[in-house]
Amino acid sequence: MTLAEKVNFHILHEGALLFVISGPSGVGKDSVVKALKRRPAKFHFVITANTRVPRPDEVEGVDYFFVSKAHFEEMIKNNELVEWAHVYGDYKGVPKSQIEGALASGKDVLMRLDVQGAKKIKSLYPSAILIFLLPSSEEEWRRRLEERAREQGTDVDMDIRIEKMKEELATLGIFDYAVINADGQLNQTVETILAIITAEHHKLV
Amino acid sequence: MTLAEKVNFHILHEGALLFVISGPSGVGKDSVVKALKRRPAKFHFVITANTRVPRPDEVEGVDYFFVSKAHFEEMIKNNELVEWAHVYGDYKGVPKSQIEGALASGKDVLMRLDVQGAKKIKSLYPSAILIFLLPSSEEEWRRRLEERAREQGTDVDMDIRIEKMKEELATLGIFDYAVINADGQLNQTVETILAIITAEHHKLV
Repeated sequence: MTLAEKVNFHILHEGALLFVISGPSGVGKDSVVKALKRRPAKFHFVITANTRVPRPDEVEGVDYFFVSKAHFEEMIKNNELVEWAHVYGDYKGVPKSQIEGALASGKDVLMRLDVQGAKKIKSLYPSAILIFLLPSSEEEWRRRLEERAREQGTDVDMDIRIEKMKEELATLGIFDYAVINADGQLNQTVETILAIITAEHHKLV
Repeated sequence: MTLAEKVNFHILHEGALLFVISGPSGVGKDSVVKALKRRPAKFHFVITANTRVPRPDEVEGVDYFFVSKAHFEEMIKNNELVEWAHVYGDYKGVPKSQIEGALASGKDVLMRLDVQGAKKIKSLYPSAILIFLLPSSEEEWRRRLEERAREQGTDVDMDIRIEKMKEELATLGIFDYAVINADGQLNQTVETILAIITAEHHKLV
């Protein structure tokens, strides 16, 4: 009989955990997830299903699962999606198999979701650990949003953004951690997220 | 007005936190604390008051505060100690000033305590974060205890030790984290504790 058995040692999070990286648009969720993918830690990154045409640099099964609209509607009908949205005529959604298969394999699951999606996940998987990314300053956040708006040829109303973030922060009760993703400090953000993941595995239940 | 003020941003643990490293005798608490002291992170390590004669390698104010018995009894009378014990004719105890002064300075406070002391601290400082160190196997733990017993010329009754640890584990409800301190893996233990400290500073309150 091992020491663990003798002292009834089943107190650590030995199983796989589910982490959600969320935060307001423009905070840098994509860059953080991309940087996490380059780390040697063994995570399963959730891949979203999408019905739009792949962009030249996008790889099937790595960036997205590219499926037909008929296939996607079938997935909706069969309740195969954790959450989904219909944006600009295309569907986008998270297949349940992406989460459940990965957790069963023993790997931690990481996913990137907007605040609404994070709420949805928490209601479906109450043990999910939700990390909220925050911009370090309004100026920096504005700069990032304006940059993206230029790329997309749209406008940025910072007042609306800040109001929206206030609303999102009001729901922060469902989030477990907050990490400031400061400009030029991506490595720091990633280290903090990895520390949170390590700590969660040592939490007593 | 900063973004932080606009969105009512006071959600992170910006203040200093109090961490307690605890666990059964022989698990290696001293080695872990010594290794943490060598890290560049800015902690305040709690120093215990002691009435015994300093050993040749012990430094006043670094290893212990060496005080007279009369002084120590004065400290007890004035309620200046968080906890204290009378062992082999000498007093040993943790001055409150060690904790409160350090927290006020903004540095995280780290202390090493046995399970009884950890309980006491949690009752006095409910926000203290308690980390329980565990041996990785009975064989390794036995080896460490026997080594110490040889040094001290005493015997080790492993059955009693294991019974005591079972009792201690029954109180694990008061502990927040458990970390296995495996032989030859001190660096791993220290990294995990540092990750826990980082994570705790990003926890939402």
